[in-house]
Amino acid sequence: MRDDEENRRITLAEVARKAGVSLSTVSKVLNGRQDVSPRTRSKVESLLEAHSYRRTTRAAGEAPLIEIVFHELDSVWSMELIRGVENLAKAHQASVVLTESGTRHAPAADWIEGVLQRRPIGVVLVFSSLPAEVKQQLGSRSIPFVIVDPAGDPEPDVPSVGSANWSGGVAATRHLIDLGHRRIGIITGPEDVLCSLARLDGYRSTLGMAGIDVDPALIRFGDFHVEGGQAHGLDLLGLPDRPTAIFAGSDLQALGVLEAARIRGLRVPEDLSVVGYDDVMPARWSSPALTTVHQPLRQMGEEAVQMLLRLRAGEPSVTRLELATSLVVRNSTAPPPEDPAAASAPPGGRGTA
Amino acid sequence: MRDDEENRRITLAEVARKAGVSLSTVSKVLNGRQDVSPRTRSKVESLLEAHSYRRTTRAAGEAPLIEIVFHELDSVWSMELIRGVENLAKAHQASVVLTESGTRHAPAADWIEGVLQRRPIGVVLVFSSLPAEVKQQLGSRSIPFVIVDPAGDPEPDVPSVGSANWSGGVAATRHLIDLGHRRIGIITGPEDVLCSLARLDGYRSTLGMAGIDVDPALIRFGDFHVEGGQAHGLDLLGLPDRPTAIFAGSDLQALGVLEAARIRGLRVPEDLSVVGYDDVMPARWSSPALTTVHQPLRQMGEEAVQMLLRLRAGEPSVTRLELATSLVVRNSTAPPPEDPAAASAPPGGRGTA
Repeated sequence: MRDDEENRRITLAEVARKAGVSLSTVSKVLNGRQDVSPRTRSKVESLLEAHSYRRTTRAAGEAPLIEIVFHELDSVWSMELIRGVENLAKAHQASVVLTESGTRHAPAADWIEGVLQRRPIGVVLVFSSLPAEVKQQLGSRSIPFVIVDPAGDPEPDVPSVGSANWSGGVAATRHLIDLGHRRIGIITGPEDVLCSLARLDGYRSTLGMAGIDVDPALIRFGDFHVEGGQAHGLDLLGLPDRPTAIFAGSDLQALGVLEAARIRGLRVPEDLSVVGYDDVMPARWSSPALTTVHQPLRQMGEEAVQMLLRLRAGEPSVTRLELATSLVVRNSTAPPPEDPAAASAPPGGRGTA
Repeated sequence: MRDDEENRRITLAEVARKAGVSLSTVSKVLNGRQDVSPRTRSKVESLLEAHSYRRTTRAAGEAPLIEIVFHELDSVWSMELIRGVENLAKAHQASVVLTESGTRHAPAADWIEGVLQRRPIGVVLVFSSLPAEVKQQLGSRSIPFVIVDPAGDPEPDVPSVGSANWSGGVAATRHLIDLGHRRIGIITGPEDVLCSLARLDGYRSTLGMAGIDVDPALIRFGDFHVEGGQAHGLDLLGLPDRPTAIFAGSDLQALGVLEAARIRGLRVPEDLSVVGYDDVMPARWSSPALTTVHQPLRQMGEEAVQMLLRLRAGEPSVTRLELATSLVVRNSTAPPPEDPAAASAPPGGRGTA
């Protein structure tokens, strides 16, 4: 069976002949070089794909590589994923190539060129989607890829790893209700990112189940960063009937809410409870340490590499893996104050001696 | 001239003949394989080094790699360095291979094997020293390496990039004295790490210049982590004549001091001033945002790659580059309270409603 399959596979010379181009042109396309006309490239790509051309792997003695691509490296969030990928790569004697490229949605066009040259075992992409052309280029060279999807918005045909955002929203909100809070604000992520909506829906449904009306004035869309958390926090805490608890859709937003509370002269957790999301290191380091929803980022990185290895070996693999989230209770949540208005001081009130 | 030099270079067949081993044994040594006796390995290594054997670089069409090796990836600190390396690598169309290996002092023995196989442009090592054997293995294959030296303890013969730790200690202490503080505590790093001592010496000298006696009770050696900062902070703030300011030798230790202040019922900066060191992101995110000593980590990563490229091109390069540090004033420092004892509440005092 295996021999037959091998025999059916096309050689590069045959691709060249069928496409009516030279062997060196085929080789240029394979290596992602830019000096080939789009028409020729597309013809060669289609032939490679139609015949499942499998490029020989790296030469013997070459160390295997796993690629991980981010649009932005500066978050603490990236580091946790990298550690997961690095852990599992090491266990398979592979090294990790790290690239920062493109936007939140997709890597930059020139990135693919390097990947095709490096011939990695596989590629982990931290993006919400992948342009069709990139999918085709990786697919036609049998380079497996997996999306680690922070936004929870995977395309159905792309292997991806995510986590349970809706359940995370439920766990955070239920914890606050159980402590006795009724006025619970939420600062979720951007409105165009699915995970923000999933966390918000978890919040709404949990309030609903507890018979608490959802007050639109307590719902804000942030940017997942500290500054946005602080601005929305100041706003929510300035309401006449201020919330006694805020579910801040990311740990960084929660840090911004802590600063907003400090500016408003409110103590956390005595006057205000705050719940984060992600459970990255700064959540443990903040003062007080944050109660937060744990997103298993390291494990998501590990699972992505596992999926790559299975895809590469031709083993059956799930297309979408969603890992569980869980609540971690630390020191930023407590029962609400008896009289929230009394706890509130004028802006800067406690900030000056 | 250049041709002569090339001609003088030894071939692998000549190395094999001189060492009295087979060509495949020489090749095994070059690729860092373990199935060669130590004696043979050492003989071949010496010949390669004596004759400045230059391994052919990666095949045409292969993407160039720059390696960066850490002993520990989980710090926010690593990410800043990685971004610097990644920025400059990208500018030179190179990709970054990331490895976590070994201890604070040196990478693990098996790491070198992968490097020799990958044939990178060069290697950035975030370690305080490098075993002689690793130096020889990289040197004999003309793979340049640079140490980014967090500890400030470079060996004289190894190219390294660091920053001005003593001056950083001076800047932090002078800022506190200028605000009016006289009782200033310090939590520096571990006693066996040179940068800890340099920062401490900067603190001592600055107190001395201001005519303030150094009180040994106010000097602590930490571990650069949050927990250590909190423990030493609680201790210092529990002294009968407590300090009104603490210079915490890292941002993470400063976060621990913020939590210690919260537990002791002290407000920052009204009752206690805190200065960090590093200026990593969590320093900006804390509540209040930290006054800290900026260590140009990203620039250190960039300079390390510049140094690699110069070494590779055979250009003259400095052996040790020390970048300046600078004070960043944010919200965690202010003049001391008029009566520090009055500001102090019993432990947990402000923590309960």
